[in-house]
Amino acid sequence: MKRKSLSDSDCPIAKTLDCVGEWWSLLIIRDAIHGLKRFDEFQKSLDIAPNMLTRRLNDLVEGGLLEKQPYSERPPRYEYHLTEKGRALRPVLIALLSWGNEFLSPQSPAIQITDKASGEPIRLMMVDQKTGKVLSAEHHQFTAGPSASEAMRNRIDMMQNNRILNDSTNRNTDQKEADNA
Amino acid sequence: MKRKSLSDSDCPIAKTLDCVGEWWSLLIIRDAIHGLKRFDEFQKSLDIAPNMLTRRLNDLVEGGLLEKQPYSERPPRYEYHLTEKGRALRPVLIALLSWGNEFLSPQSPAIQITDKASGEPIRLMMVDQKTGKVLSAEHHQFTAGPSASEAMRNRIDMMQNNRILNDSTNRNTDQKEADNA
Repeated sequence: MKRKSLSDSDCPIAKTLDCVGEWWSLLIIRDAIHGLKRFDEFQKSLDIAPNMLTRRLNDLVEGGLLEKQPYSERPPRYEYHLTEKGRALRPVLIALLSWGNEFLSPQSPAIQITDKASGEPIRLMMVDQKTGKVLSAEHHQFTAGPSASEAMRNRIDMMQNNRILNDSTNRNTDQKEADNA
Repeated sequence: MKRKSLSDSDCPIAKTLDCVGEWWSLLIIRDAIHGLKRFDEFQKSLDIAPNMLTRRLNDLVEGGLLEKQPYSERPPRYEYHLTEKGRALRPVLIALLSWGNEFLSPQSPAIQITDKASGEPIRLMMVDQKTGKVLSAEHHQFTAGPSASEAMRNRIDMMQNNRILNDSTNRNTDQKEADNA
């Protein structure tokens, strides 16, 4: 099944999705966060086949990300409202937007998040809400949770140096390992 | 084309992807950040068909997220190394992980990011690197960039109250509009 390319869109989120995957569902959530509620609105915004949209909306309702609410009895018509679970995907969308702006259209982003006071575009940083510490291998680590499988524990063991948290490329470590081999 | 369900995996990122989309590419990036480099390693980790993996790896190389580097001449063999562009997807992965933990396995996450000092799991917060301000509709807004199309400008106009930045559900506003109608 060949999907429609989103790379022509000027939305950095859509570009990011085109670059890294196939994500109608996240685009529906994006639109819902922007205020869209009705089938026709989503269809117009996304230019998506009705049967595909129906399927994705049903999946999102089933997954608890959207709630169906009637707005007309005759004919029966529904709106799709974000749940807390759906709305909580905002950080994912903001991270996608931020990446898309930085790497897919660095010269001329179509949309930016700016500081109201200074007008400057933001640069995204992730911190721990409780401590305010920037997420980094210095202060944080991955820990297996109670439900971790053996495969997950192996994966966590593998992530020496917490590479997912670490900005450095670990080239020195790799070199040292190579020298010792 | 029916894809393999990832919901059986205990990785919250994989669960999130299963819940909201189809994202082999991001899972490859996740693995590369974890330190995997070779075709066989990715294949073992992802349990993905070789032709699909080849296609995704080529896409990621073409997109500039991975770089091919030879590690054997006879037979010719390559490793896939993350570029800065690929590595910069970390915030997306952390946001996905955080959401997956909160909404897909709140009782027993398989993997958590914890504070090394306290052992407490982090709670993700996004701030502006320059000002340290938490991203919110109070301090930030969406602004059309130089390359914004008319459709994008309309979309930005539509996002009254910067809903994507705003935690509130805007129910009061909706109610007021309904009362005035």
